Amino acid sequence: MTPYNYTLLCDYYELTMANGYFVSGKGDEISYFDVFFRTIPDGGGYAIAAGLEQVVEYIENLHFTEEDLAFLRTKNQFSEEFLDYLRTFRFTGDIYAVPEGTPIFPGEPILTVRARAVEAQFIETFVLLAINHQSLIATKASRVVRAAGGRPVAEFGSRRAQGADGAILGARAAYIGGCAATACTLSDRMYHIPATGTMAHSWVQMFDSEYDAFRVYCEMYPDNATLLVDTYDVLRSGVPNAIRAFQEVLLPRGITRCGIRLDSGDLTYLTKKARKMLDEAGLTECRIVVSNSLDEYIIRDLIIQGAQIDSFGVGERLITAKSDPVFGGVYKLVAKEDAQGRVIPKIKISENPGKITNPHFKRVFRIFDRTTDEPIADMMCIYNEEPIDVTKPLEIFDPDNTWKRKQVTDYYLRELLVPVFIGGKCVYDLPSIGEIRAYCQNEVDHLWDEIKRLENPHKFYVDLSQKLYDTKIRLLASKGTDYDS
Amino acid sequence: MTPYNYTLLCDYYELTMANGYFVSGKGDEISYFDVFFRTIPDGGGYAIAAGLEQVVEYIENLHFTEEDLAFLRTKNQFSEEFLDYLRTFRFTGDIYAVPEGTPIFPGEPILTVRARAVEAQFIETFVLLAINHQSLIATKASRVVRAAGGRPVAEFGSRRAQGADGAILGARAAYIGGCAATACTLSDRMYHIPATGTMAHSWVQMFDSEYDAFRVYCEMYPDNATLLVDTYDVLRSGVPNAIRAFQEVLLPRGITRCGIRLDSGDLTYLTKKARKMLDEAGLTECRIVVSNSLDEYIIRDLIIQGAQIDSFGVGERLITAKSDPVFGGVYKLVAKEDAQGRVIPKIKISENPGKITNPHFKRVFRIFDRTTDEPIADMMCIYNEEPIDVTKPLEIFDPDNTWKRKQVTDYYLRELLVPVFIGGKCVYDLPSIGEIRAYCQNEVDHLWDEIKRLENPHKFYVDLSQKLYDTKIRLLASKGTDYDS
Repeated sequence: MTPYNYTLLCDYYELTMANGYFVSGKGDEISYFDVFFRTIPDGGGYAIAAGLEQVVEYIENLHFTEEDLAFLRTKNQFSEEFLDYLRTFRFTGDIYAVPEGTPIFPGEPILTVRARAVEAQFIETFVLLAINHQSLIATKASRVVRAAGGRPVAEFGSRRAQGADGAILGARAAYIGGCAATACTLSDRMYHIPATGTMAHSWVQMFDSEYDAFRVYCEMYPDNATLLVDTYDVLRSGVPNAIRAFQEVLLPRGITRCGIRLDSGDLTYLTKKARKMLDEAGLTECRIVVSNSLDEYIIRDLIIQGAQIDSFGVGERLITAKSDPVFGGVYKLVAKEDAQGRVIPKIKISENPGKITNPHFKRVFRIFDRTTDEPIADMMCIYNEEPIDVTKPLEIFDPDNTWKRKQVTDYYLRELLVPVFIGGKCVYDLPSIGEIRAYCQNEVDHLWDEIKRLENPHKFYVDLSQKLYDTKIRLLASKGTDYDS
Repeated sequence: MTPYNYTLLCDYYELTMANGYFVSGKGDEISYFDVFFRTIPDGGGYAIAAGLEQVVEYIENLHFTEEDLAFLRTKNQFSEEFLDYLRTFRFTGDIYAVPEGTPIFPGEPILTVRARAVEAQFIETFVLLAINHQSLIATKASRVVRAAGGRPVAEFGSRRAQGADGAILGARAAYIGGCAATACTLSDRMYHIPATGTMAHSWVQMFDSEYDAFRVYCEMYPDNATLLVDTYDVLRSGVPNAIRAFQEVLLPRGITRCGIRLDSGDLTYLTKKARKMLDEAGLTECRIVVSNSLDEYIIRDLIIQGAQIDSFGVGERLITAKSDPVFGGVYKLVAKEDAQGRVIPKIKISENPGKITNPHFKRVFRIFDRTTDEPIADMMCIYNEEPIDVTKPLEIFDPDNTWKRKQVTDYYLRELLVPVFIGGKCVYDLPSIGEIRAYCQNEVDHLWDEIKRLENPHKFYVDLSQKLYDTKIRLLASKGTDYDS
């Protein structure tokens, strides 16, 4: 399917500012913007980057149609020269980004744009929207999947998603974060997220009896028979009827793999009872799937209580990230180039220390323990600093508590921001969705458990190189810009 | 722009069930489904229906492409006869719905489908998604706008929306709920929601000084100059520079209408100080716009504290309905037709009384006080009941507390569910977005203030006719279906 033309999915002020830059002659000044976020949703210890593929699609498809220009003309705010310029407008700059599926932390750039001011400013809204939305859901999914402790989690939330993309791309992000499948058929068709599903209560109600509904389903889908057992009474009607249908339809065909689903009631109590009934009927391979307003906290509690659950369907609380539904990525100017092409760092001051930006065109390195391959910290450097000498010990500070520090000796580095667009051309091979998901799982597996606690996790250090730190302090003191040293 | 083909935006089980109905010969049985919701987000007293226009677009565009069928074939779960049937699949049934912008209440149908089982089941996911998303945002917007007490509210949240539709249609829903404008340009282009905007902090940072940034903007947009004054220091730098730019650029041209925007800091303190500075400079017509993680509660408190604010920009907390981001509309079978065409009511039982459905094919009437035009209660009736005789007093029960009742005498009725599709043909004239918004405002204006309290509002009564109530009780007793009397 052709991607929509989302060129006009921009805050209106991007256009008035672009027109302003264009008319005032500032449009061609090279500027640098960082996307970063300030707090991890749900008080977690890490977030998962996602949405880059949609940024790539957007940038490649970026153009104004004649109808778009005609529409803008009706606003009576844009010069004809500017509208004429938009007719051939394309993104011609550079974008660096963290690959999808990477654990990310507050304060560090997850995407950096270097482009003419008019272009860099224009793409702000969509870039943020794509990264914020999918990173939110991938992060939530990672929490839910982690709580499920290895039991598969399917994303079931389309009907409660915030719009069609909320469902389609939400399922994609949930898969990146570790979900095994989705209910959303279109996500499978468009993004190869495996679609799955069982039956609704209405299926059971459509038949004269619950047993008939189960029998017909088993005959239709003997290899995928998961029966919803809570339409009437789980233990007195649903499970017995399911057992009878399995015994009469599946077992004679030699099929022992089947399932029941519960979508209401006390899931700990009911699954324990149901498990016992299934086992006593010899259906030890029958899996128990549960759903009903689940999230990572309820899943954790169900498992602690010994609920007999083989897999989870998670709906509205995942697809909307209900407990904390905003990923607060921002897009901030961090540098400009002067007429001589020197990079001049810029800072945004705020009364709130958390809102002060990390200035400059930066590179970000993840520091790994050479023995365990576990990440120890991230380090932001100025783009043209001499590289970190990995043969020497490295001292890392927690920038929020500079008295806290640690020294690492046996480590290696990986650069986090990779080139995605150079001179407007995409230079990045988009990985397959399966590759992204496997990469994410491996990265999360290697995070310290302390960082993966659902509540009150250990804080991962994101440090600034000495040079970058000094620059930031100097800019704060002068409250403005500063020439690159 | 052509709407996307969202045919496959369905839970996968809709397809496996549809295939099941088709193959088992149940696909042609006429069934009735209701969309309704159980609780009002944020503990509010009313919700606002929205999303119907997108349901209409979806239904009219509903078809499977050859690529869709090829994709489904790869799943190895669908019979060739079924896939062949899907090739010419269209919706041929009836849909009744509450017009967009109508205040709605828990338990009553807001959309009813009468169709062949296979069709009625198939459209579940998208219908719910469209109604749930936009009703959620329209309801939230109504709360925010109400808190603002007549001051205009602009929707600014695209960058934090949950996907592109979250932004575009979220802006549409926010407008229905009472917002005055949006930042989302594409919502203006596609749905005629007026787009608006000022400048970002990056505009100020792009210039050598804050004053230069303001001066250039005033020169560019003398009739729409709203200057963002919090990039450096609101009271020592931002407001003085704005005043200077207004005085040097706008006043000489005779322009007195202008504005400043604050996006951080203590908005009560800063706006009081800024208002004083502006007034002392003679800029009494300069409006003060504020933004920064606002919602109905913060807006209410700002106004109570006497903050000097003329309009609000509301972002992430509106576009995601952050404090309660799920509208829990469900889609439940309420009746079937037998071979003789008799309507047989169906009920869904649950251990949780709140999850028991109101059975039957229903009509819903809103009862208005003839003197004040205020709605008193809603009444659900069986589709073929003799009409309520408005010349006689009517006794209304709170169905959750049947000892609570009231008698109304001087009243008139309006039917809430209007025909949208009959026999697969759209019979509904979609109102313009302006008409929907004006209708919504009028409807909300006529609700009792007690229902519009943000917290702990009075509960609006949604009653069942005696006949419908008796049917429900009978079905509950027999735990199943019941012939229509």
